[in-house]
Formats: sequence, C-alpha cells, structure tokens
Amino acid sequence: TLKMLLEDQDPNVIYEMIEELETSEKAVVFRLLNKDLAAEVFSKLEPDEQYELVKMLTDDEIKSIFKNMDPSDRAELLDELPADVVTKLLSFLPKSEREQTLEVLNYPENSAGRLMSPYFIYVTKSMTVQKALDKVRKFGKDAETIYTIFVVEEDRTLIGTVKLEDLLFAEPDTLIEEIYTPDPIYVKTNTDQEEVAELMKKYDLNAIPVVDNDMRLVGIITIDDIVDVIDEEATEDIHKMAGMSVTTTSYFHTSPLIFIKNRLPWLLGLLLLQSISAYIISSFESVIAAVPILAAFMATMVDAGGNVGGQSSTLIIRSMALGDVELKDWWKVLLREIYVGLILGSILSAVLFVRGFMISHDVMVNVSAAISLLIIIIFANVVGAMLPFLGKLMRIDPAVMAGPLITTVADLGGMWIYFTVVTHILGIK
Amino acid sequence: TLKMLLEDQDPNVIYEMIEELETSEKAVVFRLLNKDLAAEVFSKLEPDEQYELVKMLTDDEIKSIFKNMDPSDRAELLDELPADVVTKLLSFLPKSEREQTLEVLNYPENSAGRLMSPYFIYVTKSMTVQKALDKVRKFGKDAETIYTIFVVEEDRTLIGTVKLEDLLFAEPDTLIEEIYTPDPIYVKTNTDQEEVAELMKKYDLNAIPVVDNDMRLVGIITIDDIVDVIDEEATEDIHKMAGMSVTTTSYFHTSPLIFIKNRLPWLLGLLLLQSISAYIISSFESVIAAVPILAAFMATMVDAGGNVGGQSSTLIIRSMALGDVELKDWWKVLLREIYVGLILGSILSAVLFVRGFMISHDVMVNVSAAISLLIIIIFANVVGAMLPFLGKLMRIDPAVMAGPLITTVADLGGMWIYFTVVTHILGIK
Ligand SMILES: [Mg+2]
Ligand SMILES: [Mg+2]
Ligand SMILES: [Mg+2]
Ligand SMILES: [Mg+2]
Ligand SMILES: [Mg+2]
Ligand SMILES: [Mg+2]
Ligand SMILES: [Mg+2]
Ligand SMILES: [Mg+2]
Ligand SMILES: [Mg+2]
Ligand SMILES: [Mg+2]
Ligand SMILES: [Mg+2]
Ligand SMILES: [Mg+2]
Ligand SMILES: [Mg+2]
Repeated sequence: TLKMLLEDQDPNVIYEMIEELETSEKAVVFRLLNKDLAAEVFSKLEPDEQYELVKMLTDDEIKSIFKNMDPSDRAELLDELPADVVTKLLSFLPKSEREQTLEVLNYPENSAGRLMSPYFIYVTKSMTVQKALDKVRKFGKDAETIYTIFVVEEDRTLIGTVKLEDLLFAEPDTLIEEIYTPDPIYVKTNTDQEEVAELMKKYDLNAIPVVDNDMRLVGIITIDDIVDVIDEEATEDIHKMAGMSVTTTSYFHTSPLIFIKNRLPWLLGLLLLQSISAYIISSFESVIAAVPILAAFMATMVDAGGNVGGQSSTLIIRSMALGDVELKDWWKVLLREIYVGLILGSILSAVLFVRGFMISHDVMVNVSAAISLLIIIIFANVVGAMLPFLGKLMRIDPAVMAGPLITTVADLGGMWIYFTVVTHILGIK
Repeated sequence: TLKMLLEDQDPNVIYEMIEELETSEKAVVFRLLNKDLAAEVFSKLEPDEQYELVKMLTDDEIKSIFKNMDPSDRAELLDELPADVVTKLLSFLPKSEREQTLEVLNYPENSAGRLMSPYFIYVTKSMTVQKALDKVRKFGKDAETIYTIFVVEEDRTLIGTVKLEDLLFAEPDTLIEEIYTPDPIYVKTNTDQEEVAELMKKYDLNAIPVVDNDMRLVGIITIDDIVDVIDEEATEDIHKMAGMSVTTTSYFHTSPLIFIKNRLPWLLGLLLLQSISAYIISSFESVIAAVPILAAFMATMVDAGGNVGGQSSTLIIRSMALGDVELKDWWKVLLREIYVGLILGSILSAVLFVRGFMISHDVMVNVSAAISLLIIIIFANVVGAMLPFLGKLMRIDPAVMAGPLITTVADLGGMWIYFTVVTHILGIK
C-alpha cells in the first residue's frame, strides 16, 4: 500500500514527493505517515506551508506532529505563527517539553542555541569502550549523530570528544580516558550561527558541541544543518550587496509585499542620497548649457565608477566573509587597489578617449573626459575597497557597503570630479 | 619536544599555526611532521605557498609529501605548477599512482572526479555484519569515511549503501543483503561539483559515491569537501554578479594582475555597451540645450533604474542557485515583478516629484521626471528579473545577468524612456 511504501522512505525523499502538492493533498499524506516521519517531513516544509497545514489538520494530528518535532524545529515553527496558534500548540506539550521549547525560543535568532539538538550521546572518562558502545547501541537510534560522542564530567561539564571509530578500533576494556580527545572545539548557546559554520568548516567537523555559560553540554549541531546555514549566510550577503534587507523564505513562498518592504527603504535612502548628485549637476547647469555635449559623458562616468567600485567592494566583502581579509589589512588593500585602479583607469580612459570621437570631435572635450574617467576610476576603486573596512570598523555588516551604496557614492564623487576637471581644462565659467 | 607536540595535532590546527609563517619557517615545520601529517597540512596550503615550498624543500622531502597526498589534492597542486615541476613531481610516483593522478587530472575541472577520494570501504551483499565490521576495523584508518559503507557487486557495480550504525545495531551474523539501502544517491565522475553539492544538501548526506560510466564505484566525496565547494560556488556567483571573472584563490594570495585580468574585460565590455547611452543622450542634445535642468535628473534615472534592476536580478539569480526558481517559472516571476515594480515605482516617483522642487520649480519638469521614473522602475524591475531566465535559456550562467549588466541596460532604456517622456510632456523640439 501507499502507507507501507511511504514508511520505508527517507524524510528528504518524501518531502520532495509532496513538495508540489496542494495543502489538502499534503494533509492526506501526513495522515499516512507514522508520527516520527510526519514530524521530520513537516519540519522541512516552508513556514507558509506549515501554517496552512496547521489550519487544515485536526488538533490531534497537529499535536502528534508537534510533539515529535525537534525542539529547534519547533521553535522555528512557533516563530512564524500567530500568537493564538502558538499558545494552542504549546498547550499540546507536556510541561518539561514546553519549558524546553520556550528556552530555545529565548536564545537570540541565528544563535547556536536555536540550531542545536538535545539528542546526543555522552560518556564519562571512567567508562570502558564496551560500555560506551553499549550506550551508542541503546540510545543511538534517537541521537542526532553517533559519529561523535561527547565526554563529560559527572556534572555534564564538557571535557572532550571521542569518535565512533576510536571506539571501534579500541579494545573493549580500554577506558575512555585513554582514547578521548581533550580540549574540544565548542560553541556557546548564544554564539552566532555564522561563527559556528566557520569553526566547523575550519576543523572539518561533523558535529560541534554547544555549552552553556558553565561549560555544561546542552546540545550539539550537526553539519547538515550548518550546510543550510552556509547557504543562508551567503544569501544574506548577496541580498545586502544588492541593497536589500534579507528575505530568508524562498521566492514563491514569500508575499510580494515582503519583498517590497525589504527593498523600498534602501531604494528611498539611495534616491535621497542621490539627490546630492542632482544638486552638483544643477550647480554646473551653466557648464552644460555652454557645452551640452558634456551631458553625453555623464552617464558613462557614473556607470564606470559604479562598476569599478562595485567590483572592488565585492572582492573585499567576500574575502572578509571567507576570513581572507581582516580589519588590520586595510592599508595593504589600499595600496593594492590604488595600483589596480591606476591600471584599470588608464586602459579604460584610453578607450573612452578613442570612443569619444564618435560623439564629439572636440579634442579637449575628449581629453577632459578621459582624465575625469581616470580619476573617477581610481577614486571609485579605492572607495569601494575601503567602505567594507569602514563598515567593519563601525560594526555594520560590510555586505551593505556594496553595489548600490558604492554606485551612489561613485556617482556623487564622479559628478563632482567630472565637472571640476572639465571646467578647468575647458576653461568654462 | 616541538616534534612530539606537532605529531598529536589535527592537521587543521597545524595549518592554522603555520599559516602566517614565512615560507622558510614553514619548511622547518614540515621537516618535523611525519609524512602523513605533512601531506595533509601541505594539501591545505594556498597554491602560491605550495609552489614556494616546492622550490624550498629538497627533492626527497617533496617526494615524501607528494607521495602521501590524496590523488585529488595532488591533481589540484599539479594544476597550478609549471610544466617542468609537474614532470619532476610525477616522476616521484610509482607507475600505478602516476597513472591514477593523471586520470584525475583528465576529469573536467570542478567535476566529481576531481574531488573524489579512492579510499572508501565497500562490502558485498553476501557478507555478514561481522565481516563488514572487521573490514571497517582493518581498513578504516585509511578510509576517507567509515560512516557510510558502500555495497557493490563482485565487479564493483554500486548497488547500495549501509550506514555504520546499521552495522552496529544489527546482529553479527546478519547478512548485508538484509540491512542495506538499495538505489543509492550517486554521481558520475564528470558531474559538476555544484550538482554534487545540491544532492548532498538535499539528502543530508555525509558522503556520496562516485561511479564511472559502467556504474562501477570509483570514489567517494565527503561533506567537508562539499562545504568548501558551497563556499566556492557562492564566491563564483558573487564575483560574476559584480561583473568579474571568478578568482578562486584568496585575496592576498592572488597577484593584482590576476584581478586586473578578471575585471578589465567586463569593464571594457560595459563601457562599450554604455556608449549607446552616450549616443542616445547626444541625440537629445537640443533638448538639454533648451532645458539644461533636465540633465540634473539623468543620474537619478540611471541610478534608480540600476538599483531596482539590480535588486530583482539578484533575487532571481540567488533563488535559481538555491533551486527555488526554475526556467518554467518565468511568467509567474514576470507577473509578480510587474506588480512589485508598479508599487516601488509609484512610491519612488512620488518622492522624486516632491524632491524635484528643491532643484526646479517648474511643475511640468517635475511631473515628467516622476512619470519617467515610474516607467523606468517598472522596466528595470522586469528586465532585471527576466535577464537571469534569458541567461538560463541561452545556457549562460544567470549570475552574469546581474548588477553591472542590468545597470547598463537600465541606463540605456532609462535614458531613452526619460528623453522620450520629457520631450512629449514638455513639448520640446
Ligand atoms: Mg533537524
Ligand atoms: Mg533559520
Ligand atoms: Mg574544511
Ligand atoms: Mg541535524
Ligand atoms: Mg548572519
Ligand atoms: Mg554575514
Ligand atoms: Mg549606476
Ligand atoms: Mg582532503
Ligand atoms: Mg578546487
Ligand atoms: Mg539539508
Ligand atoms: Mg574529504
Ligand atoms: Mg560552478
Ligand atoms: Mg553557479
């Protein structure tokens, strides 16, 4: 039967099978799944689908799913639901589990506490390998991972880890004390998920322990969840670099109004900042009136500056995200980017100079445009590379110092440079 | 002694300790490490450091490191070295290993074949759990992972996987046949690493098998390497979205000339494409001469259009990268983005209209600027969202359809829309 077929499947496979179904059809499938599987598949759904299902399933059905969810998945769900539904769902839980869930909700968003699972295997130093393996066999089915086993003191203070293979390769009567790895890499409950990801990447970990302020082991985070965090953090940077607040839900599961809310404030801010450029240009109105062809180069200046600054800021922001460039490196970057800007600017100016004759045969107009472009490119390249450092210094995410902001800054600086250079060279005014 | 202290460490920890040292100091450390550890740490270095070390260490030292490297790390190193050094290093290997390394080099760049490790544990269906566990104990130390064990036919055809925990939880005399999972998720040697990453993410895998064209198991890829691939692929997209060819080496380990090479062609292309805008503007020279204040709005039009188009293209490109938006969704995206553009455009135009009075008190100038902006924003928003689909359709990476390209397109379209609207409304010419 369909029911039997479903029972055998991996939750990821079932999720994929039902992903495109209508909510009512999904509800039918959920009724066929056993409660563990139902809870696992339900946890994988997008928040808007979860909410639709909560409305469609009976209280008993939801109760069974909700009770079997991981605390972290439960917290994530509650985060998205209206208060009355939250209250109802919480009432389905026994007291201890309710308190555990509320505790998870109390950890800051995107913190290790929000991600961790309380289902792990721990042993003490004085246990034998045989006893540890028995524990793995007994509790392994419910644990988030059995590949890393955590070594704790009697009071649950974390003191080390031991890998499953070390247990397998050791003699049964060896003590854990003799084979465990002390000084474990760990994070605290309030550590940001980005830092968790960095540590797990750096040390190639499959699981990382999470401790409270007294170093007591309270949970673990596994690499499959961190892989999703890495994607999320890249999305965060990419959205910010395009001048948007971050949208974490997927495109078709997000209302257009959310996108408008995440895009509009940035566009408005940039529009207002850009006003200064209108001022600069209008103050040179007489120059444009005298030599209208100068207007034809304006967009080129603005665009080239924006493109160059966008490149250098992007390079630095991404290098910072990957840990390759740090705040203290600012002057090394400055020197490099002056050099790079000089070379890029020289070549582009030469091309512009030649291109200019297609529009104007006035040599001095083309000379002044070329010189302006050279200065603008060095300026934009350096400002683009330095803004992320300024962001880091001011504890603003460097990612917001990219694209649109540098475009606007290049625009303001560019217009001012352009008109100053042309008025001097052409001797207007 | 330092030597003993180093022997006990994780290669990642040693790498971190020596990362900032001079090459000559690194060489000293490598002489202290045992050959396995030396090879592992060496594999983690940046290509330019590896090359420096190859020049500094003696042939014997390099030989011992090179022989102990994984085939995939070996291939990656050879990829970066001059031909004469490649020849020398290859001569250090016994014939079979040399052939294996050359085979890896023959797989396309960024393919599964390049990433895979040939060190895995495989069993046949007819083995008992006991025998499989013995195999794990015997070969586990050299295997890339023992958490997933691969089930093959006698001729090495891949037929399934079995997890280490399944072996641990089963009775010793159970046959693998009874407990293994058939129909494994797998990739081929020439599968792109991006696709490998997608599969491992989707199915939360710790390791994925790699097969040749005859479905014979030839290697495995583990999640720690895929985590690096995920970062690499995000970097690739981010660089392309800023209008650059991808630089895979880290900032300070890359010569400025490489960056210039990766940035210049895009800047030149955009500059030339942007020439069209100079044409458009110069063809409206008489309009600017008649009402010079119109020039003051030009940069605003260009910038706002670029920002809006940059946002929508970025949203779609990232959604495509995460698999949330596919080619067939284009019309749904089109409808949504017309709607979003209309709302964003209305609000921004209203603000521009008010802002306009700070520069010009001519109501009709401000009206025409506001109407132009509304049309430009809808245009840029829709074009920004549709360009990634065009890219996908033409089998160009959608990521190149972002920032600078859409800025330039918004610029061309924007200038044309702006001058057409103002000449009509103001009745110039
Ligand atoms: Mg989970
Ligand atoms: Mg989350
Ligand atoms: Mg790593
Ligand atoms: Mg997990
Ligand atoms: Mg973050
Ligand atoms: Mg970040
Ligand atoms: Mg621009
Ligand atoms: Mg490796
Ligand atoms: Mg690579
Ligand atoms: Mg996953
Ligand atoms: Mg590996
Ligand atoms: Mg790729
Ligand atoms: Mg890609």
